[in-house]
Amino acid sequence: MKKTKVGIINVTGYAGVELARLLHQHPEVELTSVTGRSAAGQELSTVFPHLAGLDLTIEAKLGEVDFVFSAMPHKESAKEVIPLLSNSIKVVDISADFRLKDAAEYPRWYGFTHPAPQLLQQAVYGLTELYRAQVPSARLVANPGCYPTGAILALAPVIKEGIIEPDIIIDSKSGVSGAGRSLSLQTHFSEVNEDVTAYALDGHRHLPEIIQELKLYHQSPSVTFVPHLLPMTRGLLTTAYAPLVSGKIAAGQKGEEELKHLYLDFYKDEPFVRVVESSPHTKHTWGNNLCLIHPTIDHRTGKLVVISCLDNLVKGSAGQAIQNMNLMLGLPEVTGLEALAVYP
Amino acid sequence: MKKTKVGIINVTGYAGVELARLLHQHPEVELTSVTGRSAAGQELSTVFPHLAGLDLTIEAKLGEVDFVFSAMPHKESAKEVIPLLSNSIKVVDISADFRLKDAAEYPRWYGFTHPAPQLLQQAVYGLTELYRAQVPSARLVANPGCYPTGAILALAPVIKEGIIEPDIIIDSKSGVSGAGRSLSLQTHFSEVNEDVTAYALDGHRHLPEIIQELKLYHQSPSVTFVPHLLPMTRGLLTTAYAPLVSGKIAAGQKGEEELKHLYLDFYKDEPFVRVVESSPHTKHTWGNNLCLIHPTIDHRTGKLVVISCLDNLVKGSAGQAIQNMNLMLGLPEVTGLEALAVYP
Amino acid sequence: MKKTKVGIINVTGYAGVELARLLHQHPEVELTSVTGRSAAGQELSTVFPHLAGLDLTIEAKLGEVDFVFSAMPHKESAKEVIPLLSNSIKVVDISADFRLKDAAEYPRWYGFTHPAPQLLQQAVYGLTELYRAQVPSARLVANPGCYPTGAILALAPVIKEGIIEPDIIIDSKSGVSGAGRSLSLQTHFSEVNEDVTAYALDGHRHLPEIIQELKLYHQSPSVTFVPHLLPMTRGLLTTAYAPLVSGKIAAGQKGEEELKHLYLDFYKDEPFVRVVESSPHTKHTWGNNLCLIHPTIDHRTGKLVVISCLDNLVKGSAGQAIQNMNLMLGLPEVTGLEALAVYP
Amino acid sequence: MKKTKVGIINVTGYAGVELARLLHQHPEVELTSVTGRSAAGQELSTVFPHLAGLDLTIEAKLGEVDFVFSAMPHKESAKEVIPLLSNSIKVVDISADFRLKDAAEYPRWYGFTHPAPQLLQQAVYGLTELYRAQVPSARLVANPGCYPTGAILALAPVIKEGIIEPDIIIDSKSGVSGAGRSLSLQTHFSEVNEDVTAYALDGHRHLPEIIQELKLYHQSPSVTFVPHLLPMTRGLLTTAYAPLVSGKIAAGQKGEEELKHLYLDFYKDEPFVRVVESSPHTKHTWGNNLCLIHPTIDHRTGKLVVISCLDNLVKGSAGQAIQNMNLMLGLPEVTGLEALAVYP
Repeated sequence: MKKTKVGIINVTGYAGVELARLLHQHPEVELTSVTGRSAAGQELSTVFPHLAGLDLTIEAKLGEVDFVFSAMPHKESAKEVIPLLSNSIKVVDISADFRLKDAAEYPRWYGFTHPAPQLLQQAVYGLTELYRAQVPSARLVANPGCYPTGAILALAPVIKEGIIEPDIIIDSKSGVSGAGRSLSLQTHFSEVNEDVTAYALDGHRHLPEIIQELKLYHQSPSVTFVPHLLPMTRGLLTTAYAPLVSGKIAAGQKGEEELKHLYLDFYKDEPFVRVVESSPHTKHTWGNNLCLIHPTIDHRTGKLVVISCLDNLVKGSAGQAIQNMNLMLGLPEVTGLEALAVYP
Repeated sequence: MKKTKVGIINVTGYAGVELARLLHQHPEVELTSVTGRSAAGQELSTVFPHLAGLDLTIEAKLGEVDFVFSAMPHKESAKEVIPLLSNSIKVVDISADFRLKDAAEYPRWYGFTHPAPQLLQQAVYGLTELYRAQVPSARLVANPGCYPTGAILALAPVIKEGIIEPDIIIDSKSGVSGAGRSLSLQTHFSEVNEDVTAYALDGHRHLPEIIQELKLYHQSPSVTFVPHLLPMTRGLLTTAYAPLVSGKIAAGQKGEEELKHLYLDFYKDEPFVRVVESSPHTKHTWGNNLCLIHPTIDHRTGKLVVISCLDNLVKGSAGQAIQNMNLMLGLPEVTGLEALAVYP
Repeated sequence: MKKTKVGIINVTGYAGVELARLLHQHPEVELTSVTGRSAAGQELSTVFPHLAGLDLTIEAKLGEVDFVFSAMPHKESAKEVIPLLSNSIKVVDISADFRLKDAAEYPRWYGFTHPAPQLLQQAVYGLTELYRAQVPSARLVANPGCYPTGAILALAPVIKEGIIEPDIIIDSKSGVSGAGRSLSLQTHFSEVNEDVTAYALDGHRHLPEIIQELKLYHQSPSVTFVPHLLPMTRGLLTTAYAPLVSGKIAAGQKGEEELKHLYLDFYKDEPFVRVVESSPHTKHTWGNNLCLIHPTIDHRTGKLVVISCLDNLVKGSAGQAIQNMNLMLGLPEVTGLEALAVYP
Repeated sequence: MKKTKVGIINVTGYAGVELARLLHQHPEVELTSVTGRSAAGQELSTVFPHLAGLDLTIEAKLGEVDFVFSAMPHKESAKEVIPLLSNSIKVVDISADFRLKDAAEYPRWYGFTHPAPQLLQQAVYGLTELYRAQVPSARLVANPGCYPTGAILALAPVIKEGIIEPDIIIDSKSGVSGAGRSLSLQTHFSEVNEDVTAYALDGHRHLPEIIQELKLYHQSPSVTFVPHLLPMTRGLLTTAYAPLVSGKIAAGQKGEEELKHLYLDFYKDEPFVRVVESSPHTKHTWGNNLCLIHPTIDHRTGKLVVISCLDNLVKGSAGQAIQNMNLMLGLPEVTGLEALAVYP
């Protein structure tokens, strides 16, 4: 059987190379074309020695392929994606360019006017667990941001069930690879090693994305979101806090059990979400596509405390993109994504 | 002038060696005696080569000194401290043994019955900035925990002024040295490197301490406190969230200014608290006694977001202990504590 | 077709769990039994959440299997392995218990008298690239140490060809996971983070193993070997130095080319050794079974400088063990080992 | 008494800010002027919050001072230093611009023609321990590179005494701060974290400096020098190897003692060199001006193995610069440099 030919636009960022790594072990598709900007003309394995198993040259323009991942930065990605759709090529866009349904959010959060607002409604938001019905038939999937993936998966079950007041604090802790491969003082080793800081205190770009999705379950959630940068390469842990609605959950240990079962039910057939019984470690998802979720109750204060964690480059980016591709191509969802986390 | 002779009980933990390091550069006191348990009989500089400048032998029992720091673990510390007080020796206790005013909290949180409940009222809680009136005349100062130091300094100004509803989330991120020098799988390099996790979800021992102190400003604060362990040695960053009381602070940028000035006023003569204008980095306190505080408002949700950071072994432990000693000995508060942070 | 049933003795160390991770993605064998000592009776996925894909209970005693990996510590491993061989079960022993051919070396380097010296000659030293002829028919393979793997692969081509004087310096830099999962102050996070040190200056146990193998190419090599511990979890880089034999290699750039081709020829059909053109990074082998080798000449001094790197838990341990198993079971050598390194 | 006014040219690199940190705690001099290029006009404490104790504005041009440190990059530094000397201002140059005595080395190693070759002979090479006679009267001190400091201090005693053959391997392991504050992919967090690599295999710029100094003790030393980059911020460990001259040192333990005493004698009055009895850790010099040296013998092969370590930004740069300044100003050598290392 002929394998589906897949291409990656802008393979040279961390999302791009992670796509290449994961596609290399995918049995049903073949990565046949990759593009880059400054690196065009070089062998992929010269720029990224860990990809030496892939015999590809970085090109300026994508070759003939059946399916495309765009790993371009926002604003640039839409420009690449639009013509592909016209040529009936299915696309998963890793950038934010098709995540927000309201075109007016783009100038506000991303500083550009969206070039194709009509596509925003067609694009399916690729948080696979929540959009499984729509992803298979989508032509264009907008792959979620890493923070929204962790936060929304942590909160969807309780918001949907009305267990919590929609007054939510999301405190996230991310490894540095989420900031990409472009150089900056904030990601210079000597600055970020042995350091932790909060950032984007005036509003991170992932906030409108989180709110948009939580609104599907509650009309006007109040969300305070503060991301933090940690001295590690991969990993994203989110601690979310919200008041429990009085009377919805039993007191004491019984309440914990009810809460756990609510999550277990919500995610019962999900191959990549695991509800766990103790506080999860990002290390236990290093390099694989799992999102671990641990819901708890602070009984003294009547607060829900949910912790989720994932690998920001896999479930938070390239892995989820392939999960979406699998559905779009009619393949089993887990194809090529079954490798365990690399521990320790 | 004869220098005050100072001793350290249990010098062999990280708080103990940090005390020794800082006392070495203190011009007015002299470290003359240090004890340890398993290491008794060895040269201090053999066990801790970075202390080679100090010519001391680790003893089983403290020599004759004028002032004592106890760096024993909780429960053991009280046993050491009580006889010293009887001998009119002033003590700063680094452990938790005299921090809580209500003796009933000890069995609940620390698993032992307090041996001298009458001393709990005499002991002064050594968060120097808030107890400056009492520390100078104290015989016994209970040095605060690292988490309470960062959290209380971040929240005291706004709770006292009634700016926030007492419905508080404290999300803290700590380096590993806070867990001490005793071996455990949780602090084994390969386990904690490239990892982040929340811990003590059923209640951390520093919680009653935080609540006790915040109660001085509000009768019944609701506090949810979740500590996290990060892959770095030193540093503790706390992000605290609370709803603003409606109408107390102006809207928009004006509110930010009011808030900043509230903090600047509150800490206006404090040598070791700095209210900063951008999100602080733990790295900027590495090895010194500062606590950096950055108060902000999430205008969309009406939440206060305050971030504080410090070095858990200095302002969060040994540095603050010396700050207290300075006051107890009638010395200028900053004596021996003026070294800048080691950056990068 | 029925898959070969495989067992792991002592799955609870880092070599053991890495075997489990890699076997999970192996298409031709099935991991059906794992043992542990203190953890016996617990679910494997409870102790190691990243292995949740594996539905196994840690047992005190191995179940019925066709093939066994022993990941027991030295001295204990031999006791487990000997009865298996009597039952005609093929074994790869990860420990050092069958690596040294001369039984007299065991008391000297490992502090015990070997219980079955007669097996030392039967055991095949499992540096697969150099023992490919013997491994397929072996009943017992002694899997090499991590340092010997990197050092011998770096040096074998030039020693064999007589290109260097046998006066060798081996300076190795290892991540901390090589020291295992047992607790020690040397692997306590706060001690090893932001630190580098040399260790085992009076002779590391891997030295006799290195010498034994280099002797196959030269009768009396002089080897100085100094290992260093670095603040990273995985990765082992070896820098080896030796004087070039005068006249064997051309001067200047031509000599570099000759040297490169000598290595390329030596390893020309090797799937897991890659001769690279620039200084290799351990990161480019993170989690996979490659050994990267970069031979160079210091023309000013007439020295060969060869650098090799690998993941100490994969090519330096569990990966190479599976590479050997593949040959012992008549499978293609690369089966289950084709995953790329996880970068960054 | 009026304090000496000191200035720093180019305070904005890591050597510059480390000078500022150390000068802040110096009791006899006052830092009164600092320059920067892109940051000119900004408050020093805005750019470097850890320096908030220093009330200085970064200027484009140095104010009136009595003594200057130049922390400019090579080639640029000479241009700044030359006019200062004409104005009789004493200078310690942190750059390489006056380290090499032979002007012909500059085009070869640094790519520029030296603008003032006549000054090269006047400049004193500021490895204080070896040039203590010349430093006090110098107008211009060329502060050594970090690698040469560690390597030369490790080797000088044995080369001078003729104990070793001059056939030397120097294998160095450095933290990332040695590469400075300028951005590069090599120092991007996600690239260097969890990685180790050798670099500058075709010759590092510190090599001619090492050879120049070792030549003072032996006419033609053969030196192979390979630096490595490690995932830590500070710290430089050097492992040097050389054959022992036959008959100069006793066999066995007696030889170890002789060797140790040779080093103890050589450095007997040195406040900043400590000959230690076990393998030293860079962590034990973190932030202070010590160089730890541990000489050993590999008896099996007749090799000397000497290990030295230091903090690349202190004894390897800013600390040694102040040590030189102290001598040039007639102050006790240790003034302002007595702080202990920050551990852990």
